[in-house]
Amino acid sequence: MKTACILLIGNEILSGRTQDQNAPYLAARLGKLGVKVMEMRVIRDDQVIIVEAVNTARATHDYVFTTGGIGPTHDDITAPSIAKAFGVANVLNPAALKLLVDRYGDAKLNDARRRMAHTPEGATLIENSISAAPGFQIANVYVMAGVPEIMRVMFESIADQFAGEAPVASVTVRSDLPEGLIASELGALQSQFLDVEIGSYPFYSKSGAGCDLVLMSTDPDRIALAADQVRDLLRSLGGTPTS
Amino acid sequence: MKTACILLIGNEILSGRTQDQNAPYLAARLGKLGVKVMEMRVIRDDQVIIVEAVNTARATHDYVFTTGGIGPTHDDITAPSIAKAFGVANVLNPAALKLLVDRYGDAKLNDARRRMAHTPEGATLIENSISAAPGFQIANVYVMAGVPEIMRVMFESIADQFAGEAPVASVTVRSDLPEGLIASELGALQSQFLDVEIGSYPFYSKSGAGCDLVLMSTDPDRIALAADQVRDLLRSLGGTPTS
Repeated sequence: MKTACILLIGNEILSGRTQDQNAPYLAARLGKLGVKVMEMRVIRDDQVIIVEAVNTARATHDYVFTTGGIGPTHDDITAPSIAKAFGVANVLNPAALKLLVDRYGDAKLNDARRRMAHTPEGATLIENSISAAPGFQIANVYVMAGVPEIMRVMFESIADQFAGEAPVASVTVRSDLPEGLIASELGALQSQFLDVEIGSYPFYSKSGAGCDLVLMSTDPDRIALAADQVRDLLRSLGGTPTS
Repeated sequence: MKTACILLIGNEILSGRTQDQNAPYLAARLGKLGVKVMEMRVIRDDQVIIVEAVNTARATHDYVFTTGGIGPTHDDITAPSIAKAFGVANVLNPAALKLLVDRYGDAKLNDARRRMAHTPEGATLIENSISAAPGFQIANVYVMAGVPEIMRVMFESIADQFAGEAPVASVTVRSDLPEGLIASELGALQSQFLDVEIGSYPFYSKSGAGCDLVLMSTDPDRIALAADQVRDLLRSLGGTPTS
């Protein structure tokens, strides 16, 4: 499977002010398309940090998706930072400029908004059907807005190119037995299904402790077989599996 | 200010199945205590990856807070991975064992649950008033549960030791003018207040586009002064600031 890193750029997430919605969305969408998200990183609006993070991520993973920092204000430094990471200039992009002129008209297209028409040399635009100012792609790095609605339309405009590999399917079996009572047997079962990733996520409800057993694989038949065995395992230990 | 990295360990976040609640909580609490969160990372339940991430983070930041992977199942590998990162053994911790015996009794304390009594050699326990199985601290790394309720009681049991430095205060001024119309003047204002971080976060509502201008600093007087100037700036451009 192809791998991806999601890079969220923005002090507002690190301060706890903003609860990020972009990473869960991208993770779920990429999984369905057959891309495995290996890492998410949230970093500050700081050029040195962005350059290091982008260069590490693009060398390590097939795809890098960034969100945030492509607006018109002083704290929007993602585009020049990505240009620096690639060792190219951040230049006025004629196609991006046209999109902004069409949207704002020449009169309202002040210097701040004109900044949003700059992209690293060699970048391809990613369409923004909501507020015109585009994202961009350079090599394996996809640069998108931080506003969730805009990030989504940007991603969906390019999503097709990531499809084609086997999507990851998942089945969840809910256990009314707590993790501690099933862990040994579950571990043994996992070792028989190396192609199915079995995760255990505890919960605590009024009726007691239990756990969700999540089985993931690109092979639905193997998931079905493993899920049946998980259910058998739970019954053999006195539990009642639901899912 | 002291700095921190928040390290979320868990495939369930990377798959998009689980929306993390721990990082925003920790970020907000640490900010109030006077600790600056420089980075958040979400990584897989994989020993090689955990070891690399922990060693990088603890060398770079004053504090590292991890969540997830300290339960009894096969996918809970945080404790042995942290031990490996420090080059020490993951050993039975008598104090942790006593907590679990008190909770479960000897009869129900099977091998899987006994795993939760193992910590890296030299670690100090972090109390878990909900489900007994403790977290631990080793050097500048604080290892906590992934279940949000448990993570919170664990963090609160140690929060006092991070207090004492100047907390970060923040003021938000809401602008009914969009970013693009105020960006140049706002950037000029930011360059006059290098000790106040001014972030601009756009929003789109029925009545039009605007932005929240968030001012953060450890000096409340400087924030108040900068916020007044932001309001004046908005009025001078025809806007009506609210906050």
